[in-house]
Amino acid sequence: MMLKTSKRVEILDITNQVEKEVEKANSKDGIALVYSPHTTTAIVINEAERGLLEDLINSISNLIPEKSNYIHNRIDDNADAHIRASLLGNAVVVPFENRRLLLGTWQRILFIEFDGPRNRRVIVKIL
Amino acid sequence: MMLKTSKRVEILDITNQVEKEVEKANSKDGIALVYSPHTTTAIVINEAERGLLEDLINSISNLIPEKSNYIHNRIDDNADAHIRASLLGNAVVVPFENRRLLLGTWQRILFIEFDGPRNRRVIVKIL
Amino acid sequence: MMLKTSKRVEILDITNQVEKEVEKANSKDGIALVYSPHTTTAIVINEAERGLLEDLINSISNLIPEKSNYIHNRIDDNADAHIRASLLGNAVVVPFENRRLLLGTWQRILFIEFDGPRNRRVIVKIL
Repeated sequence: MMLKTSKRVEILDITNQVEKEVEKANSKDGIALVYSPHTTTAIVINEAERGLLEDLINSISNLIPEKSNYIHNRIDDNADAHIRASLLGNAVVVPFENRRLLLGTWQRILFIEFDGPRNRRVIVKIL
Repeated sequence: MMLKTSKRVEILDITNQVEKEVEKANSKDGIALVYSPHTTTAIVINEAERGLLEDLINSISNLIPEKSNYIHNRIDDNADAHIRASLLGNAVVVPFENRRLLLGTWQRILFIEFDGPRNRRVIVKIL
Repeated sequence: MMLKTSKRVEILDITNQVEKEVEKANSKDGIALVYSPHTTTAIVINEAERGLLEDLINSISNLIPEKSNYIHNRIDDNADAHIRASLLGNAVVVPFENRRLLLGTWQRILFIEFDGPRNRRVIVKIL
């Protein structure tokens, strides 16, 4: 799945795209690994309420500030993005039955960009 | 698996329940996905020592304070719970062999409630 | 897979060892669960640039300080290590095809020791 982000830090709801992959899978029941191959993005599952997504970004930005005396920034100016991504994790695993994800009522699969805007890729592996 | 939490923030050791699911599974060897379908709870693997569980709650509460100027709280009063849950993750994956989880000596599977008391559900998917 | 750490806090790149396990697996396509059975270590996927790894350790150490009034430390002197490990997670799941991990260009599998030096073990379960 290809994604295009438009800001440095941004959250995209990718639930519908993952659901489409699961609908066309061979197995009716199993798990879907939703995996980002990037090192400055994260994938989490939570509610996609607009205000909450801003709160989430603000909280992570407070914990790991954009600017600090990061050693990595002598090479590349994005240590904060790598560390934020490491804290949240680059993948989630979701169970499915009858080709439907067993997401809870409020759960959405969220792709978090920490070093955009960029073109990004997400791998959905179904077992 | 159904759970009942009795405080706003609380940790339950659910290892025994997960073990029972693995014992009655079709596959002898594989992985168990332990998945919470909620957006204000987390699942982690760590030691279940009482003092440590309190330390864990205190540390997360310091990182993500209960009250702050969260935008989400204009709708619902639990942004802190969503953000804490996102930081820790809503699921763990554990390998098993001969229908026994390959947990380390001190490892326990911990369900963390951040917006209780509530009735909660945990999905155990075995592959 | 056995590992030996040499400092209290240290990051080891274990990508090559995981790749070897995947090369000799029965399945050509699937997922690899890379799982630490310890409660004071973490496994994350990110870039293995030396400066960045130091930044990551510094950031986690700032978020969860080594010394604080941890209750667990009345028993054992490593509450910080348990909490840091809980934040980052004890396992990652990586997809593979044709016996090759689908890691992104900069992605490496990183084992993080928070209470070394010790002998450690990592389980690679392939499905």
